[in-house]
Amino acid sequence: MSSMRTHYCGLTTEELLGQTVSLCGWVHRRRDHGSLIFIDLRDREGLVQIVCNPEQAEMFKIAEAVRNEYCLRVTGVVTGRTAGTINNNLKSGKVEVVCATMEVLNASVPVPFQLDDDNLSETTRLTHRVLDLRRPQMQNNLRLRYKVTMEVRKYLDELGFIDIETPMLTKSTPEGARDYLVPSRVNAGSFFALPQSPQLFKQLLMVANFDRYYQITKCFRDEDLRADRQPEFTQIDCETSFLSEQEIRDLFEAMIRIVFKNTLDIDLPNPFPVMDFATAMGLYGSDKPDMRVKLAFTDLTAVMKDVEFKIFAGAANMEGGRVVGLRVPQGASMPRSEIDAYTQFVAIYGAKGLAYIKVNEKAKGREGLQSPIVKSLHDAALAAILEQTGAEDGDLIFFGADKAKVVNDAIGALRVKIGHSDLGKKNGLFDDSWKPLWVVDFPMFDYDEESDRWTATHHPFTAPKDGHEDMLETNPGACIAKAYDMVLNGWELGGGSIRIHREDVQSKVFRALKIDAEEAQLKFGFLLDALQYGAPPHGGLAFGLDRIVTMMTGSDSIRDVIAFPKTQRAQCLLTNAPSEVDEKQLRELHIRLRNAEPKVV
Amino acid sequence: MSSMRTHYCGLTTEELLGQTVSLCGWVHRRRDHGSLIFIDLRDREGLVQIVCNPEQAEMFKIAEAVRNEYCLRVTGVVTGRTAGTINNNLKSGKVEVVCATMEVLNASVPVPFQLDDDNLSETTRLTHRVLDLRRPQMQNNLRLRYKVTMEVRKYLDELGFIDIETPMLTKSTPEGARDYLVPSRVNAGSFFALPQSPQLFKQLLMVANFDRYYQITKCFRDEDLRADRQPEFTQIDCETSFLSEQEIRDLFEAMIRIVFKNTLDIDLPNPFPVMDFATAMGLYGSDKPDMRVKLAFTDLTAVMKDVEFKIFAGAANMEGGRVVGLRVPQGASMPRSEIDAYTQFVAIYGAKGLAYIKVNEKAKGREGLQSPIVKSLHDAALAAILEQTGAEDGDLIFFGADKAKVVNDAIGALRVKIGHSDLGKKNGLFDDSWKPLWVVDFPMFDYDEESDRWTATHHPFTAPKDGHEDMLETNPGACIAKAYDMVLNGWELGGGSIRIHREDVQSKVFRALKIDAEEAQLKFGFLLDALQYGAPPHGGLAFGLDRIVTMMTGSDSIRDVIAFPKTQRAQCLLTNAPSEVDEKQLRELHIRLRNAEPKVV
Repeated sequence: MSSMRTHYCGLTTEELLGQTVSLCGWVHRRRDHGSLIFIDLRDREGLVQIVCNPEQAEMFKIAEAVRNEYCLRVTGVVTGRTAGTINNNLKSGKVEVVCATMEVLNASVPVPFQLDDDNLSETTRLTHRVLDLRRPQMQNNLRLRYKVTMEVRKYLDELGFIDIETPMLTKSTPEGARDYLVPSRVNAGSFFALPQSPQLFKQLLMVANFDRYYQITKCFRDEDLRADRQPEFTQIDCETSFLSEQEIRDLFEAMIRIVFKNTLDIDLPNPFPVMDFATAMGLYGSDKPDMRVKLAFTDLTAVMKDVEFKIFAGAANMEGGRVVGLRVPQGASMPRSEIDAYTQFVAIYGAKGLAYIKVNEKAKGREGLQSPIVKSLHDAALAAILEQTGAEDGDLIFFGADKAKVVNDAIGALRVKIGHSDLGKKNGLFDDSWKPLWVVDFPMFDYDEESDRWTATHHPFTAPKDGHEDMLETNPGACIAKAYDMVLNGWELGGGSIRIHREDVQSKVFRALKIDAEEAQLKFGFLLDALQYGAPPHGGLAFGLDRIVTMMTGSDSIRDVIAFPKTQRAQCLLTNAPSEVDEKQLRELHIRLRNAEPKVV
Repeated sequence: MSSMRTHYCGLTTEELLGQTVSLCGWVHRRRDHGSLIFIDLRDREGLVQIVCNPEQAEMFKIAEAVRNEYCLRVTGVVTGRTAGTINNNLKSGKVEVVCATMEVLNASVPVPFQLDDDNLSETTRLTHRVLDLRRPQMQNNLRLRYKVTMEVRKYLDELGFIDIETPMLTKSTPEGARDYLVPSRVNAGSFFALPQSPQLFKQLLMVANFDRYYQITKCFRDEDLRADRQPEFTQIDCETSFLSEQEIRDLFEAMIRIVFKNTLDIDLPNPFPVMDFATAMGLYGSDKPDMRVKLAFTDLTAVMKDVEFKIFAGAANMEGGRVVGLRVPQGASMPRSEIDAYTQFVAIYGAKGLAYIKVNEKAKGREGLQSPIVKSLHDAALAAILEQTGAEDGDLIFFGADKAKVVNDAIGALRVKIGHSDLGKKNGLFDDSWKPLWVVDFPMFDYDEESDRWTATHHPFTAPKDGHEDMLETNPGACIAKAYDMVLNGWELGGGSIRIHREDVQSKVFRALKIDAEEAQLKFGFLLDALQYGAPPHGGLAFGLDRIVTMMTGSDSIRDVIAFPKTQRAQCLLTNAPSEVDEKQLRELHIRLRNAEPKVV
């Protein structure tokens, strides 16, 4: 490989028996048996055992002095291990290298933790990120991440997609999140924004006749961070002209299938199932349902309109209210404590309680049902519940009744929670496999009560279904969008849409969103302008790379698939970014801190 | 290809004769011959001629109405052109498509300029960038750019390099340029910096055992912009452990050779010549000499110490002064006007004049030399000039005498100017080919007179040559670095170095740069920390992608190889970034504008 080494430690196998090799790596573990010293030498490909014999006095003296994480160069002969000492967990486990020379390339101070300690706090890991990254798990995660991107690139390259870079210093695009701003030095009082996505630029590239574009690029959102969010994240961003919604979905579904196959040898279903938004919300209360969970809602709103139980009747008669049942097969054995825990759990999502019925013995009618609420439900309602949920003896039915959003969020989360629970797994309510799903036919608009106006469900550049253009202003709530999300096991992997390619339709959408002509011109004039020059029909989508790799590696957090992530306080513990800057720098940027006296420099 | 089209316009060739095709594209040109309408339909692959016959009345009516840049879908039969109408400039030039149906996918308002107008102002082009990008030249430039990156990725992938993303929101690294800052909302009064390069992160990745890293990534410098600079630019950034300087250079030299071969079928020399920094400065006055120009300096400093001509003697005896001759073969015929023009040219670089000698007839001695300065040069000096420059009858010798920097800059630029001139090309002083060169053995430090201290020639993380470590503090000016630049035709394509991997050496360099321990800890504590944990020997380099593609495409400016560039005022004329932002946004970021009353929102 080089003048310094001939092979990787981790790839030193029995094929090299008898050969003299030079290896470079780190002391992973050192065992001093007095007569012999054993060193597990580690490089990115793994470990190999180095055996040091005191007969080589000079080398042995070095071997006695080295400690964990010293960086060494070693030469020696690859020798077979004796039968009892073979380690089948290592690629190099059938051999060891009998050390001839050893050179310390760099010493190490004692490390603050053992690399194979799996119980480190995140603060420790991020503070000592360089050592943390030496751990095999992190090495594997980042290598898988790389493999995913290369598979994506190869696939898109063969289909004629071209990687085109779009600006990082750009203009604010109002996609619902806060922008990161960059003050301009040359243009006093002005600011660039870091892109929340290359959405408008990729549309402009379609208008500019590039036909097929992709980019694996950083995007930025200054939001309060959750477990699966980072201030900067990476998007696989794609756009194409002259393809239908179906063709676009097929193309990117195949891409994801190939990525899973070629990196982890996982066969995803072919084709992915497709479900419209309304069905997904109806059955699972979610637009990204975890299809591994074999539980679904039964809508009981109509059934509950005239029951005595006020919570049900109230929700059933409320505008935008909803009542659902969630049948849990063989759930009747669930102890009171577990039901109480679920009641607390749904409260997180705003549910004020969690009604249930245990179906002990249907044949006994009302008597066979165990529940505090049965007495407030008339016979017809009870019969409808049993019939429509399909409940059998031994089942349990949970109920949600509230505004639809509360019901969907609370019972949707409960559905997933029960599916993943011990009971769920024991009773076959959880299919531990990869369950992708397309969710399609999203509404164009959501109504935002707070601001009393319609907002774009995806973004304002999403095209309505053919024939829905005329309803954009007259009946926005009924407009369906040519939008689609790819969902996997309850996570949104990516989403996209056919875009508006006609200036008149785009202007209508802006009006529906109460963006007046002046504001539209100021913010999106360049888009409206471009659409007038023969913009082609186009569409695309964007995948969240961090999230895909997190799923593929089974990591707990996207921070485990990013080399140098930020904490939930948006800080880099390694470099201490963000940090204070000189007054001179601020002055050059024409800004000053609030609530701070200017410092004299 | 899809339900909308079967082929690309530009790839519709005689292989498809007789077939019915569906094409999508833009009206590039429309010629109405009354009886027939011809439309050149354009997509990203090029043009094809569409013939519209009035017998198809409905279609013909559409064809009569379409105008330039309308986006159309056309179906028709591929037919051979008659002999006289074949266009060999087009791939599709042997055929035309006899139009059966035509659909206007989108109309276009009249375009503000013709796409084939080559004399557009940059303001026009950047304001209407979407239309500008439709021009074949821009299409080709961005596709070549993409091909270059894919060749780089394939090459590095095969060698085990891994693309790892480093942060965009990071900490200021003082590499000589101004940082772009990003105010933090969560951490009041703190700022991220956009990276000037991933230098320290890639070194950390080597310490973290990733062994071979690359990234094609945006870097940011808030500098006053020149023709070949942008606020954001793209670097092919590479780093590897356990390779020698020579091995690293060989590896990346081969990469550039492959990129040129596989994209433009250009064979670069193998191997690239290597020249040390001192030789390059001595012969060409530049660390990135244009080796196409067959002219070189002759150092005459020693010769001029005792001549009567004060400008020469003064420079020769000055500390840091230099006198050089530049022999121009067959230059004696150069008219006075041209010499005057060169005199003005070198003044740009600070030269106070431009002495010369025309060698009319050496045999005549002093009488055969034509020059205002000959009378002030003694015989021995004249003999030395002729001998050392190797001047022949008919040659001209230019002289530079001043501080070395002025001489190098002025006569170095003159050398290139003459080489590229008509005279230079006529007289074989210019070899119009690709002339790569490695420049190596840079000094570790430059002395900055203004601040009266040593600064890092490359950056403070560059390793000194073996054995030079002890001179870092005692004799910084004599320290040579393990640094190397790849130069092509006078442009620096990339540069790099072996990095310091020992904490004690790194601390010495900081001290030589007058960065005290406290400041070093504050700014680079995380690096010094990492170097203590067995950091491996490592090095790498970074190429300027924009510049490479600019050279390869023969573009005038890097703005021609970037989809959405900024102007020299760091503005985007398309989106009007940077722009003013809301007071609310500033308040959230804990900053306010200087010299501005807070607005009430």
